Amino acid sequence: MHELAPPLTLEQGLRWLDLIGILAFAMSGALLGVRKRFDLFGVVVLGCVTAVGGGAIRDTLTGQTPPLFLRDETYLWMALLGAGLGFALGEGLARFERTLSVFDTVGLALFAASGAVGAINFGLGPLGVVFAGMLSGVGGGIVRDLIANEVPEVMYRRDQLYATAAAAGALVVVLLHPHVTSFQAQLGGALTIVALRWLSRRGWVSLPVRRVPGARD
Amino acid sequence: MHELAPPLTLEQGLRWLDLIGILAFAMSGALLGVRKRFDLFGVVVLGCVTAVGGGAIRDTLTGQTPPLFLRDETYLWMALLGAGLGFALGEGLARFERTLSVFDTVGLALFAASGAVGAINFGLGPLGVVFAGMLSGVGGGIVRDLIANEVPEVMYRRDQLYATAAAAGALVVVLLHPHVTSFQAQLGGALTIVALRWLSRRGWVSLPVRRVPGARD
Amino acid sequence: MHELAPPLTLEQGLRWLDLIGILAFAMSGALLGVRKRFDLFGVVVLGCVTAVGGGAIRDTLTGQTPPLFLRDETYLWMALLGAGLGFALGEGLARFERTLSVFDTVGLALFAASGAVGAINFGLGPLGVVFAGMLSGVGGGIVRDLIANEVPEVMYRRDQLYATAAAAGALVVVLLHPHVTSFQAQLGGALTIVALRWLSRRGWVSLPVRRVPGARD
Repeated sequence: MHELAPPLTLEQGLRWLDLIGILAFAMSGALLGVRKRFDLFGVVVLGCVTAVGGGAIRDTLTGQTPPLFLRDETYLWMALLGAGLGFALGEGLARFERTLSVFDTVGLALFAASGAVGAINFGLGPLGVVFAGMLSGVGGGIVRDLIANEVPEVMYRRDQLYATAAAAGALVVVLLHPHVTSFQAQLGGALTIVALRWLSRRGWVSLPVRRVPGARD
Repeated sequence: MHELAPPLTLEQGLRWLDLIGILAFAMSGALLGVRKRFDLFGVVVLGCVTAVGGGAIRDTLTGQTPPLFLRDETYLWMALLGAGLGFALGEGLARFERTLSVFDTVGLALFAASGAVGAINFGLGPLGVVFAGMLSGVGGGIVRDLIANEVPEVMYRRDQLYATAAAAGALVVVLLHPHVTSFQAQLGGALTIVALRWLSRRGWVSLPVRRVPGARD
Repeated sequence: MHELAPPLTLEQGLRWLDLIGILAFAMSGALLGVRKRFDLFGVVVLGCVTAVGGGAIRDTLTGQTPPLFLRDETYLWMALLGAGLGFALGEGLARFERTLSVFDTVGLALFAASGAVGAINFGLGPLGVVFAGMLSGVGGGIVRDLIANEVPEVMYRRDQLYATAAAAGALVVVLLHPHVTSFQAQLGGALTIVALRWLSRRGWVSLPVRRVPGARD
């Protein structure tokens, strides 16, 4: 008898997308490290921290220690691979910036949505879920920018929704969760984030900035 | 029969003061965000982080996860309210700087004193209690300044006692605790902090700085 | 009958070396604080954070809360002593830079090796052990530089192996652990770090940096 390989389940599919997000985040961190002229070690650490930082903050805050990336080593290996690729390609990565940006959005969407579902299962209230989901998506990038001694990019790039998209996606998870399965809620949240990112890149949605007299752009 | 509303207990009163401290801290964070030209999201996040950061660090270090602000959503709503107010008022907030500064001192005093009492109940030794109490008071401001890419204000503003006042208040809690109730120890610590802040604003107490040959003020 | 004092056990010896490492790290943090013109409080906090930061991050990530420095107050007292010494000596410390650097290497070696052994006992996989060991060694210095608003030194000082040496030492612990006692594995890891540091100071080993067209050294 011929044994068919079992088809990829949805959960396995999500995990693969998750790992692709890790890879993309690690490359984005490594690229910043190369630009800052960090050595091999610095580049690799910055890449890994970008990739696993958001999840680490989320897991530590919700008491799920050790965080996932220390329990399932696939994450750390994937982060190392992405950071190593980033160092090897160096500035050459910039040519793939569009592709990286798509990966980055996928990572943001999946991390934020899965972080929100995790926080609901953990028993947090709605605001806590939005906070934890958003942090899962953007925490790694914030840690990356802090270490590189820059103001975190998510704080001011008002031309594009980023953390706001993550928060909105987590909110969609909160609203959908009582009515559908966890998986469907997660998917709805992730798609919301991808859609908002796409709309904001087209310039159709944006965030206000407070005018400060005398300040310049 | 006419039912009287129960009078406000001391514990409820403290919780209200706590929430006012959260509000003041959130506004101070939001004001820095407006000045740095962060977008609406950045301003709100900076405000919230300032408000809940100290408690989050304290609870995470002492293993009380998830931290209070994720367990009792009132804190996060209050932080959002303060940050939103900060964004709406923008530079207009500067006119209320004196009022904000009073709130800020109240928040510092209450957070540091309640952090110290919590650490005693948790079983930490005297030095750990002072450390945890101080961190509860100043942690949010340190995280705020790190994200805004500035040297934390508490590190160098020697013209005014701030973190030192928080540490001194926590020490008073340690010294009083064996002899009085928790509540009285907390009150004693908080009053110490308010008094030290007031004295240092009058210029009556200050901290030494090491003279470095060749450095300028 | 004459009672002999029990001889110092190896474990006690290691703890003493550990405390010497704490002292050296605290002095290095305090020295940076003096140079940045922080006030007494800022100098002391920067010194203590440098001394206990790596262990605090490690213990928090692996869920061993409260971290060791809050459970065993000797660590915090030693950190205070080192930071106080640093403030008292001020720039005078610079004359002892060579001695401090030896202490610093000892601290790095012992923290990284003991962090790795702890992570193995905690049940982490090989990559997690290397990560946790490295972080135990360099985490304090990273937090120190973040607070002082500088790019963490370990990220770019490619003229000398530092964090890389810590990671290599943790890797040696991972490789030795199945074959020898915990203590021997820890010793092997620590000696590897000391050796690598010594070799890199002599300029015999170093790390590559990615050439970026147009960037200057």
